[in-house]
Amino acid sequence: MKQTFVMPAILLAVLGASSNAMAADDKLADAIQTRQAGYKFMAWNMGKIKAQAVDGSVAFNKDQVLSAALAIKGIANSGMGALYLPGTDTRSAPVKTRALPDLFDPKNTPERNKIGQNFVQQANKLADVAAGGDQAAIKAQFGEVGKACKACHDKFREEDKK
Amino acid sequence: MKQTFVMPAILLAVLGASSNAMAADDKLADAIQTRQAGYKFMAWNMGKIKAQAVDGSVAFNKDQVLSAALAIKGIANSGMGALYLPGTDTRSAPVKTRALPDLFDPKNTPERNKIGQNFVQQANKLADVAAGGDQAAIKAQFGEVGKACKACHDKFREEDKK
Repeated sequence: MKQTFVMPAILLAVLGASSNAMAADDKLADAIQTRQAGYKFMAWNMGKIKAQAVDGSVAFNKDQVLSAALAIKGIANSGMGALYLPGTDTRSAPVKTRALPDLFDPKNTPERNKIGQNFVQQANKLADVAAGGDQAAIKAQFGEVGKACKACHDKFREEDKK
Repeated sequence: MKQTFVMPAILLAVLGASSNAMAADDKLADAIQTRQAGYKFMAWNMGKIKAQAVDGSVAFNKDQVLSAALAIKGIANSGMGALYLPGTDTRSAPVKTRALPDLFDPKNTPERNKIGQNFVQQANKLADVAAGGDQAAIKAQFGEVGKACKACHDKFREEDKK
């Protein structure tokens, strides 16, 4: 009889540990998917600004460009750093991510913060410039935001890394 | 010899049609995934406001609540209606969506617009109230935004439909 009680206890312990691991993985997966959602939504809005103020493939509409810039500004200022939890890099993440381990390395904290703060500043400036409605100024500042995005992609994102 | 040239031509035509269908599907899938990204990012920010101003499970921080409310406002005002392309409902979409065909039915346009406009208004009001920093007022307006979300979920989203 002892065996029959010991076995379920071990099984329960294993299942319990597995269930805790699952909950932790869910939390990490959700953080990754939430930051990806933020970037995807910003990219959509960058695309609208590009089409209207840079390429001219869509007629320039000041209100639409401003709305797009404000969406980017709102997302950029929402504290996305909190979504970069330990265990969410390419080496350890439970779901697909392109965030390289270097991004989480404490020795890179100053550079990471500088890149992140510059991105927020450039996004804020894009919203200010968009409110002015000057298409040439929006085009120029769109370029600055693009450079700010690329600074992080080049350094800390898989595939784009040189 | 004729056959060998006719066959590739047919194959190319088939491949071309298939490729066009794929490109169209990609566009629809991207629209669906972009709107889902917007809702996911808003949900993350709603969660932060809930934790700080409603449940009190996290200490109230006026700046963080305001940032969250501004992210929601920015996304809500970005013209997400453009992401509801024909062919992106539960019956016809190339990827998983919960947007019911009723949402796309022209007879529901007035109700859909009313629900959408109310959501934007309530999100704008949440940002205004958050700027004031009154926790009780934020809690009350958070409830109004939640109701505005639910109005659409109850009527036009799979699973939550009564």
